[in-house]
Amino acid sequence: MTVLRPSAPEPETPREEVDLRCSLAAQAAPLWEKFTPEARADALTVLADALDANTDHLVHVAADETGYGKDRLTGEVRRTTGQLRMFAERVRTGAYLDVTIDRADPDHPLGPRPELRRYQVPVGPVLVFAAGNFPFAFSVAGTDTASALAAGCPVVLKAHPGHPRTSAATAGIVSEVLARVGAPDGVFSMITGRQAGVRALRDPHITAAAFTGSVRGGRALFDIAASRPTPIPFHGELGSVNPVVVTPGVPAGQREEIAAGFVASYTLGNGQFCTKPGVLLVPQDMDMVELVTRAVRQVAAAPMLSPETVDGYERRLAEIHAAAGTDVLVKGEVTVDDAGTALVSPSLIGVSSIAELREAADVLLEECFGPTALVVQYDSVHEVEEILAALEGALTVSIHTPKAAPEPQDEYGRLLELAQQRAGRVVFNAWPTGVAVTHAQHHGGPYPAATSAHTSVGTAAAQRFLRPVVFQNAPEAFLPPALQESNPLHVPRTVDGETEPADTPPN
Amino acid sequence: MTVLRPSAPEPETPREEVDLRCSLAAQAAPLWEKFTPEARADALTVLADALDANTDHLVHVAADETGYGKDRLTGEVRRTTGQLRMFAERVRTGAYLDVTIDRADPDHPLGPRPELRRYQVPVGPVLVFAAGNFPFAFSVAGTDTASALAAGCPVVLKAHPGHPRTSAATAGIVSEVLARVGAPDGVFSMITGRQAGVRALRDPHITAAAFTGSVRGGRALFDIAASRPTPIPFHGELGSVNPVVVTPGVPAGQREEIAAGFVASYTLGNGQFCTKPGVLLVPQDMDMVELVTRAVRQVAAAPMLSPETVDGYERRLAEIHAAAGTDVLVKGEVTVDDAGTALVSPSLIGVSSIAELREAADVLLEECFGPTALVVQYDSVHEVEEILAALEGALTVSIHTPKAAPEPQDEYGRLLELAQQRAGRVVFNAWPTGVAVTHAQHHGGPYPAATSAHTSVGTAAAQRFLRPVVFQNAPEAFLPPALQESNPLHVPRTVDGETEPADTPPN
Repeated sequence: MTVLRPSAPEPETPREEVDLRCSLAAQAAPLWEKFTPEARADALTVLADALDANTDHLVHVAADETGYGKDRLTGEVRRTTGQLRMFAERVRTGAYLDVTIDRADPDHPLGPRPELRRYQVPVGPVLVFAAGNFPFAFSVAGTDTASALAAGCPVVLKAHPGHPRTSAATAGIVSEVLARVGAPDGVFSMITGRQAGVRALRDPHITAAAFTGSVRGGRALFDIAASRPTPIPFHGELGSVNPVVVTPGVPAGQREEIAAGFVASYTLGNGQFCTKPGVLLVPQDMDMVELVTRAVRQVAAAPMLSPETVDGYERRLAEIHAAAGTDVLVKGEVTVDDAGTALVSPSLIGVSSIAELREAADVLLEECFGPTALVVQYDSVHEVEEILAALEGALTVSIHTPKAAPEPQDEYGRLLELAQQRAGRVVFNAWPTGVAVTHAQHHGGPYPAATSAHTSVGTAAAQRFLRPVVFQNAPEAFLPPALQESNPLHVPRTVDGETEPADTPPN
Repeated sequence: MTVLRPSAPEPETPREEVDLRCSLAAQAAPLWEKFTPEARADALTVLADALDANTDHLVHVAADETGYGKDRLTGEVRRTTGQLRMFAERVRTGAYLDVTIDRADPDHPLGPRPELRRYQVPVGPVLVFAAGNFPFAFSVAGTDTASALAAGCPVVLKAHPGHPRTSAATAGIVSEVLARVGAPDGVFSMITGRQAGVRALRDPHITAAAFTGSVRGGRALFDIAASRPTPIPFHGELGSVNPVVVTPGVPAGQREEIAAGFVASYTLGNGQFCTKPGVLLVPQDMDMVELVTRAVRQVAAAPMLSPETVDGYERRLAEIHAAAGTDVLVKGEVTVDDAGTALVSPSLIGVSSIAELREAADVLLEECFGPTALVVQYDSVHEVEEILAALEGALTVSIHTPKAAPEPQDEYGRLLELAQQRAGRVVFNAWPTGVAVTHAQHHGGPYPAATSAHTSVGTAAAQRFLRPVVFQNAPEAFLPPALQESNPLHVPRTVDGETEPADTPPN
């Protein structure tokens, strides 16, 4: 085990301040909710502009704290601000309100029906636990904060201890922008420390929580959220093995590309992404093992997020090495550079049959955070099906098939069925890393990939922080603008079960 | 306390059979999922027809077991079959699949974007805990079963002990119909007994649960669902006080109607509905207390669901009587008829000021299952706001305002804000009982009204049993029919963020 200088301890926000932050968030909630969609969208856009304008400074601080390179971090800031702008656009359309109107029907066969007008309202203050592996996109101004603010919810952000100065710099910009656009005090605040996070999670003002991190940490917080006197939804994205299947028909010409793609994907960010493909399942008679092994040897050593991350990785890797039936195809190494930073080179583990994988499935089919992956050889598609069926919930399952002749034979029906059953995203001839931020995206999956049915990436992520309310027989003047018959906000509506476009004039 | 013959003990389905039912449900899941929306809709319609055809028999059995009158029960069967047909219609449109497509964008400013196609898939076997107070509409073939089957999920139904013969008769029809339409074995089964229910809730094959009942029972089950190795969503509808506010401006001509409506609503089904309005808040200077008192005296005694229900009601009522500051305006009585059935007449409790309500809020602002309600006099709208702010989550808040001049003055802004914050449905100049089954309906609310953000009534209830899956870059032949570009199922889709009607020809 490499001995490294440990990270500085995480300072704890004092208890009184945690309580104050939660209470101020609750006071801000009705005020922030009253911002029109337009005004909230503008605020998110101004925030995106401000972060973009500060990219150099933010990247400089983060590069120092995280071990990530400047290009990767610059891309992540761009992703973060693109994400904020996409939520802004979505909020502007009003589609997130899901306005649904059923007109009164005095002659309904089951008895007279009242008029019902439903929309989505913000749940209230949201506690966001920032992630360590994405210091921008899943941290202070990341997808959870963006989707909560977009939904109309104040945010209390628990910073990740891995990048305290990056968090402080980002939080400073968020607070400054929100004050500038006239958002109420308390609509955003940051706390630090594990105990502070738990205290906030128990605070009665907090109405929902979001988390990205480990299964162990996430489950502990999930349990706290569920056991409160008033339980709250805990939207956690915990862990995933993200298996990749290469089907038997993949021709020789496609294999080198698959090998290179797999290695690039699992070593991206030095293997510290939640969508890292952890297991490659290849047919016995293919030369994939050699191709992948060769590609891994080309990848340079790189830093990991923190000395603790390196420790955890080395422990987990030793466990995998010790498992029966594994061959170390590439032995990754940890070296320490002149500045005292550990550099970790990728490793690759071979498992020569499904029988051997089955033997040590408990150890091998669990996420390993860091630059290692398994290549497992299989005899038949039925064996792959067996492994997918035994797998815990995953964020993704990827399938590589012959590009030229993509027709599924009957034998792939069950494989597809299982892929869909075990994962939130099924990827074809591509890699799970690089989660596109779009409307259709789903970043989630059965437990432990996620603790709720919602996505944490893409515009649908705002749904986590909304709940429906219906108005029955309300006089027009008592209705919120989004529900008024004259549709002053020009939002799209579903009326009597039929979609009505946003620009339909009132009748 | 009236001494009554207790109900027969609830027989327990043997453990091995519970395990078998859950396991068969899991085997049925992929088969039932593969039924086209059309075929599933047909099955629900055939089931509705079969229940309608057996109405007389079902009502006869239920009248004997529940103490409800035949007219009420006949109406409930109609509600149940109307509900099944409405889910069938909804499934037929494919709208519930929420198909969302983002086309590939190789030139996106944040980097090339893959094609993503998302839809909703069934979560898997659902455990439904039937309710006691609606032997049809929230029981064996009720809203939870209908919405789970509609979503494509098998159902293991835990029967309510209050109406075992009604449950068995209904389950017989459900099983017969499902077999007749070719649904797989295991797509529906019924178990009985408290321990059997808990065992099924812990079964790894069960992927979601639905419940309608008490806060105590529901919370115990919620805790079990959340503490499983793989936690599952527990959609519970637990308890609600359903406050009603009469605003100061209501003119004399409207008051008699309000008094009569309130009494009819809180004594409907002898006060055993989850939407029973439990608290009427009226201005001090109005004659509402007298009007309500007079109306209550007109209501005849009626049976309750079971001897245990009567016992529980009498205990709870004694607690309310004992609370400081309450006046017994009408003392309900329990008499026993010749057949040994307890008949309970409604009671009415007065609280003459908000200060007195505040004193005993813990006892008074909690649901009381049975024919009693509170009339509370207030001095100012601010006092009403204070009560709403202190209230636990509710299914409904109702507001009675002058019908002739419905303009809200500024002083009602905060009241509306609080109503929306504390409830899932805000009702104007009408009563919360009689929950319309429509698209826009929301029957739920903040905890303890519900344990999730979803509705349990209306077509949106099927959303509880669906989860999103996205396909990335999938060859057309690998896509499920609902996601294929040619749209063979003719489902409505959202493409690149814009709604595309169901009949748009493929491009």
